[in-house]
Amino acid sequence: MPADPDTPRGHRVLSKDRMEGFSDGVFGFAATLLVLDLAVHPPGTPLQQVLHAWPGYLAYVVSFLTIGGTWLLHTALTDQLAQADQLFLRLNLLLLLVVVVLPFPTGLVADTLHNVSGERVYVTTYGLILLVIRLLGSALDAYARHEHLYAKAQEGEELHSTQRKFLPVVIGYVIAIVIGLALPVLAVALYFGIAVYLVVPFREAARVLIRRRRSRNDGSG
Amino acid sequence: MPADPDTPRGHRVLSKDRMEGFSDGVFGFAATLLVLDLAVHPPGTPLQQVLHAWPGYLAYVVSFLTIGGTWLLHTALTDQLAQADQLFLRLNLLLLLVVVVLPFPTGLVADTLHNVSGERVYVTTYGLILLVIRLLGSALDAYARHEHLYAKAQEGEELHSTQRKFLPVVIGYVIAIVIGLALPVLAVALYFGIAVYLVVPFREAARVLIRRRRSRNDGSG
Amino acid sequence: MPADPDTPRGHRVLSKDRMEGFSDGVFGFAATLLVLDLAVHPPGTPLQQVLHAWPGYLAYVVSFLTIGGTWLLHTALTDQLAQADQLFLRLNLLLLLVVVVLPFPTGLVADTLHNVSGERVYVTTYGLILLVIRLLGSALDAYARHEHLYAKAQEGEELHSTQRKFLPVVIGYVIAIVIGLALPVLAVALYFGIAVYLVVPFREAARVLIRRRRSRNDGSG
Amino acid sequence: MPADPDTPRGHRVLSKDRMEGFSDGVFGFAATLLVLDLAVHPPGTPLQQVLHAWPGYLAYVVSFLTIGGTWLLHTALTDQLAQADQLFLRLNLLLLLVVVVLPFPTGLVADTLHNVSGERVYVTTYGLILLVIRLLGSALDAYARHEHLYAKAQEGEELHSTQRKFLPVVIGYVIAIVIGLALPVLAVALYFGIAVYLVVPFREAARVLIRRRRSRNDGSG
Repeated sequence: MPADPDTPRGHRVLSKDRMEGFSDGVFGFAATLLVLDLAVHPPGTPLQQVLHAWPGYLAYVVSFLTIGGTWLLHTALTDQLAQADQLFLRLNLLLLLVVVVLPFPTGLVADTLHNVSGERVYVTTYGLILLVIRLLGSALDAYARHEHLYAKAQEGEELHSTQRKFLPVVIGYVIAIVIGLALPVLAVALYFGIAVYLVVPFREAARVLIRRRRSRNDGSG
Repeated sequence: MPADPDTPRGHRVLSKDRMEGFSDGVFGFAATLLVLDLAVHPPGTPLQQVLHAWPGYLAYVVSFLTIGGTWLLHTALTDQLAQADQLFLRLNLLLLLVVVVLPFPTGLVADTLHNVSGERVYVTTYGLILLVIRLLGSALDAYARHEHLYAKAQEGEELHSTQRKFLPVVIGYVIAIVIGLALPVLAVALYFGIAVYLVVPFREAARVLIRRRRSRNDGSG
Repeated sequence: MPADPDTPRGHRVLSKDRMEGFSDGVFGFAATLLVLDLAVHPPGTPLQQVLHAWPGYLAYVVSFLTIGGTWLLHTALTDQLAQADQLFLRLNLLLLLVVVVLPFPTGLVADTLHNVSGERVYVTTYGLILLVIRLLGSALDAYARHEHLYAKAQEGEELHSTQRKFLPVVIGYVIAIVIGLALPVLAVALYFGIAVYLVVPFREAARVLIRRRRSRNDGSG
Repeated sequence: MPADPDTPRGHRVLSKDRMEGFSDGVFGFAATLLVLDLAVHPPGTPLQQVLHAWPGYLAYVVSFLTIGGTWLLHTALTDQLAQADQLFLRLNLLLLLVVVVLPFPTGLVADTLHNVSGERVYVTTYGLILLVIRLLGSALDAYARHEHLYAKAQEGEELHSTQRKFLPVVIGYVIAIVIGLALPVLAVALYFGIAVYLVVPFREAARVLIRRRRSRNDGSG
């Protein structure tokens, strides 16, 4: 795309430092708010109480990994960003708006796991929010690509790895949302699996393992 | 204005990095605290509960967009700032003091929307806080301009666009506050409209759309 | 003091960036937590409720100004810092530990103002914490000065102005704490006055006013 | 270890700035959240209430010092980091996930100290979390060392001092966890001692004291 006379570069360049600072603050705070739902209320001995609260711990881990995974994508993305423009900042705000909501259904999901009969609407809400976070994250990437906001010719491994995972993750979320209408517990297990899949860098880990084995075989490890 | 012997530049230069870091932190926390009011309490089936809580969601979105819009203005403003002085830092603290208060009436507004009969005083309080935030944001800009704290000769599109919107927004707030005394629900709808108007960069969006159509017509899109 | 062979400079240099980032986060979060105590509980019409909650608003403003004033001191101080050493980082942590506690007595003070008969111990606790914050802030400055951690030969106006206010503020706090044992409401009024005194830069403001009047007299304003 | 063709440096370099920003945010929030448990509920006069709440204050100080000590380690570690890779970012997320959980058992420990008979399971949980935080912090250091992510040939005093303390601290935690099964109050006292040991830089403090005495003897202090 040729340089457009209506949008001189000088008008569009916005410092990305503050976007990163604000986003880091929101990500960090959302991750911390999750813990507020880890209250221990049911009756019983203390040990029973702590063990009985497992759904809260599970929901906490799923949400923390999802926020962490989104932060990893966000970092990889802005790492390559040469500049932000006005629409990019707004898309980013929209992503943060949804990320901040996550602690709210996390507590409801924990309750649902206790009373399997009823509240599957919470698990559905939770899944929809996870899906929207992923779609908005990818929308940021697509917009930056379309508007030529990236600086580096070669994209980093982190961003590349997240993009490879986009389709499997979205399909996984849709399947889990549908399953959650009938079997909320299974859906939460799927969300946990997807969060682990999102965060674990399989190729990088494999590379480290292979290198370690090689250097051991070489006798120089 | 000529250089003043009473205020040598060396005395006034304060690093703006920390002001940005502190402000980003406060904006981010205030935005996240909003979600604490999204509790689900009313009786009914879970689906009814989630649907019944719509005023909370609406108030959350309005407040988040207002904080986000203020952050965008703040970013555009400090982006051009060559230096901060002592009064600027105080004005900034005052702005943050009011921004932090916003989560408090947000929860009250959500309650008001449920019990339309009564609590219109909350909606009025909410509107007044939104108005004060806007006025303080513009006061920062006016002070920086008057004291020659801006570095760049040409102001950025982001700041320019926010300034163009100043008068319509203030008039809109005043109208909504007056209306809120009689019809609180309509006032909240107006606050929502103003927040969207504040955040959406119509000119930039139009420019992107025009460019896209043009490049499609050229057959190079 | 000559260079000491036991403490080569290379061992002591620690980047101050992260200390600033962590401190900004804690200051910002402590300032935001204050608002959690602004709940409206007493019976009455909504308007009566909002008006009745004035002690909470007052306590909020006093605490916010105190945190803001401490942040201003902290910023002015690290602005001049050439390097941090291990003890400085620890002193800083100690200061933050006390700053974070401030939201806790703030809520208690608001309650006290409602029930004047009783809880003056809360006002005393509050005053002691304000005093300790001020003393630790000055301890940071004294340590940096004693260990030659400051880079710039000439200290900035901000830091200088805070140091000029040190003795009056400490004396003010001690008087207010003593008065608070008998008249808690008066003590809170004093804390408010001290907070305003701390944050308002009288000399800078006077300078701006004088300059404005002068340029008006010159007919070039 | 020779350069590995499978992992070209260009693929692994990730900016560490955002990791620091995000981590500072999470450390700061976690430290601040601790204060939410400092509520005063038991009956009695206000003075009795404040004095009666000492276990909460103790637990707050222990947790704050532990988070502060972990932040000091984290800062010393990233200070030397030349680059981060994908696995390092994940390890860091795992550390933060556990740090964020700390405010939760802190409140439970405070309750335990009131009702000595029962809830020693909370103290055990608390100790296990403290131990895991320490192990993950050292895992970050070990990984950075093994993968040659450090830039500087000579490691800083701060990092060195933390590493010297690793084994004593881990042994201390294990002993305290075992003791806590029978005597929870003693275990909390041990956790307090370990936290102080972690944060106080004995060698640096000694050095400063020795230098001060010397310069006094020289008559130039």
